[in-house]
Amino acid sequence: MAYELHYWPTIQGRGEFVRLALEAAGAAYVDVARGTAAAGQGMPALLHWFKDSAVERPPFAPPILRHGKLVVAQTAAILLYLGPRLDLVGKSEASRLWTHQIQLTIADALAEVHDTHHPISGASYFEDQRPEAHRRSAAFRHERLPKYLAWFEAILARNVHNKPGATLHLVGARLSYADLSLFQLVDGLRYAFPVALRKASHKAPLVLQLHREIAQHRRLSGYLRSERRIAFNQHGIFRHYPELDG
Amino acid sequence: MAYELHYWPTIQGRGEFVRLALEAAGAAYVDVARGTAAAGQGMPALLHWFKDSAVERPPFAPPILRHGKLVVAQTAAILLYLGPRLDLVGKSEASRLWTHQIQLTIADALAEVHDTHHPISGASYFEDQRPEAHRRSAAFRHERLPKYLAWFEAILARNVHNKPGATLHLVGARLSYADLSLFQLVDGLRYAFPVALRKASHKAPLVLQLHREIAQHRRLSGYLRSERRIAFNQHGIFRHYPELDG
Repeated sequence: MAYELHYWPTIQGRGEFVRLALEAAGAAYVDVARGTAAAGQGMPALLHWFKDSAVERPPFAPPILRHGKLVVAQTAAILLYLGPRLDLVGKSEASRLWTHQIQLTIADALAEVHDTHHPISGASYFEDQRPEAHRRSAAFRHERLPKYLAWFEAILARNVHNKPGATLHLVGARLSYADLSLFQLVDGLRYAFPVALRKASHKAPLVLQLHREIAQHRRLSGYLRSERRIAFNQHGIFRHYPELDG
Repeated sequence: MAYELHYWPTIQGRGEFVRLALEAAGAAYVDVARGTAAAGQGMPALLHWFKDSAVERPPFAPPILRHGKLVVAQTAAILLYLGPRLDLVGKSEASRLWTHQIQLTIADALAEVHDTHHPISGASYFEDQRPEAHRRSAAFRHERLPKYLAWFEAILARNVHNKPGATLHLVGARLSYADLSLFQLVDGLRYAFPVALRKASHKAPLVLQLHREIAQHRRLSGYLRSERRIAFNQHGIFRHYPELDG
């Protein structure tokens, strides 16, 4: 049974964290909102979740995953569900909780990235919150970005399974959805904050190495070059405003 | 085996969502940072998680729960772990994911509440980001608060188990940790944004009813009057600045 991903069709956004897991696992899935309304897909299928009061358990926002009767929203909860099914998480409860904990921290970082260009309101234009965006971005570049990178670096360094020469992983000795999500966070930062990331990354060499290794994953390397990978653009969470990059 | 909660000792903060679950279940727990350093508790025990490079899986921030060998941080992940053990979540996977999904949305709302008084940086004083706080708070009051309340209201209204006269619940027919967390969110908003909440609440009567009912829970009503419940104050996530309440 194919997975259905319901997400905005023109941005990577939070949906990309789900796409990366599905793609890395080679899972069959439908990117519903990128299909046609004639096929029962497209934007009407996405908006149905928010407009139809017959939805018993309405999501607050996309992404939404449907798998048979199961419907789940919130990126981290979707990955919590997919992890065991796609073999992208360890088997023990401790391992699963730790992977989820890392994912939730990536989600926190992502929300802060969004707020660098929209520190006042997501409902207003960037141009209407530009001075605030400058201040918030400076704090992000100088305080938050180094703090997050240092945390990921420490996790990679302390993961005892990372033997010299072995592929890097955040959890244990195998690929997890948290590795994929950290790849996506770094990839987005490379687009949005290339200068700040370059300055900060000399203190996070393992994080950058993980990013390079995930990009070469046998399935993901093909995905990243395909049309299924939407290009970064100025409508997503990661936006490149040189004036915010310091 | 008693649970250990490691959290800042002088604020409710995110730790309170964990305390409420433990208290509602009548679970034995130690609020570690509120103990004495002489007893191996207090702030040194909390800071150990962040200073000691021997911690294999370091948390990014409190709260942290320790239960035997298990250590988990991130509020929602802690509640994911505690839910089944404290009988504060349903038995089916669908029910557990839905409860977690609600919790993650409450966490998102909470981060936005924090940013009403610290829209630029958590490392700077409120007084240094006051004009930005005014703008962000206005957007929160007019856009975000009504949106979140409408979502919680819809969930309560659509939960078919809420028969007339029955106690309200977000998920199914029994108390879950999400109910407790929504209580806490509303309780904090009553402290921080009493005017805005009063204006918005006529459209969310079930949310306010849930808040009242949880406050009367047989164990929680005692807890809320006890010294274990830290009072709201101007150092936590919920802060009362009348100028931000519109």
